[in-house]
Amino acid sequence: MMSDIRICFVGDSLVAGVGDRTALGWPGRLAARAQAVGWPLTWYNLGIRRETSADIAARWEAECARRLPAGVAAGVVFAFGANDTVLEDGRPRVEPEKSVANLVAFLDTAADRGWHRLVVSPPPNIDPEHNARLAELDARFAAVCAAADVGYLRALEPLSADVVWQREIAAGDGYHPDGAAYERYADLLSPGWNHWFTTAFGVV
Amino acid sequence: MMSDIRICFVGDSLVAGVGDRTALGWPGRLAARAQAVGWPLTWYNLGIRRETSADIAARWEAECARRLPAGVAAGVVFAFGANDTVLEDGRPRVEPEKSVANLVAFLDTAADRGWHRLVVSPPPNIDPEHNARLAELDARFAAVCAAADVGYLRALEPLSADVVWQREIAAGDGYHPDGAAYERYADLLSPGWNHWFTTAFGVV
Repeated sequence: MMSDIRICFVGDSLVAGVGDRTALGWPGRLAARAQAVGWPLTWYNLGIRRETSADIAARWEAECARRLPAGVAAGVVFAFGANDTVLEDGRPRVEPEKSVANLVAFLDTAADRGWHRLVVSPPPNIDPEHNARLAELDARFAAVCAAADVGYLRALEPLSADVVWQREIAAGDGYHPDGAAYERYADLLSPGWNHWFTTAFGVV
Repeated sequence: MMSDIRICFVGDSLVAGVGDRTALGWPGRLAARAQAVGWPLTWYNLGIRRETSADIAARWEAECARRLPAGVAAGVVFAFGANDTVLEDGRPRVEPEKSVANLVAFLDTAADRGWHRLVVSPPPNIDPEHNARLAELDARFAAVCAAADVGYLRALEPLSADVVWQREIAAGDGYHPDGAAYERYADLLSPGWNHWFTTAFGVV
């Protein structure tokens, strides 16, 4: 069993937990549950509001490298897509082909660094047309991860049918829920997260 | 009242909340309380384990600049010192004069950027000699902040006398407590944090 596990959560506002008045978001909830069972985890939340995969590309490796020194068991969890698929002047902020290429590059770089990898799907928002674009990206991300033998945790479809998620994003800004819905998001991710964590780091 | 307030917490493992199984640390607790009363806060935890003020100097401005875009009301909370005052080969990892110079530079840079500033004192650990060095640095940091008209929130002395803090660091690794002690730390900081927040950002 590894004695010093460090994980960076890399992504956008939905990683940062914007809207969550408990200040945990889903990464904080997964981290708290891991620590509650005694797993030796240090975690860093590197979600930034409004960032696309192109924005993330410009900074994630340097930020993670400072937090994942040699000698620790290291992992990176990626979650993005909502901002890539926002339309500006009729075009996505990042074209799907480029979003996919960015994910491929992130996974390759992390592997080269010796960092374990996990990818989390973006959640739905209040706009059906935006969600349709997200669903296409979600399917492509799933295929990328399958080809790379990296775990991809689905959340878009189950949260689309989740009454707590839907109620809270409607009560918020249409994109960011409050704590109860982030708890639902964490609940959905929990089995896949636990499987990845125990497999990658040898904890039980 | 500002409608979009963003704050970065910059520092070391005691900012990151290492040891806190609730995954909040003191920054998460202060952020949750601010959001509970409706203050429009987005917050980012930029604490990194083992970092001295010299390590922080190499990355804090770039990391904050990505998270504090133009058009938002921005603030930076600095907290460091425990690692500067660790002895290696009989010398502090960072000499006190250099720690002070780093703090001065951080405050100047933040002011130039238009970021509101607050400094939080480091907490005590289990080693009396280390705490004596920390107390000297604490006094110098307080003087720097007074001269710069920046708030400096004391925590070293009150936490030295706090039974929860002392019990939890002793039960841990001697430096990092669990959640109940981070709650005490947040409680101590709360009045000064609230004063700074309401004054800097015009919220009530």
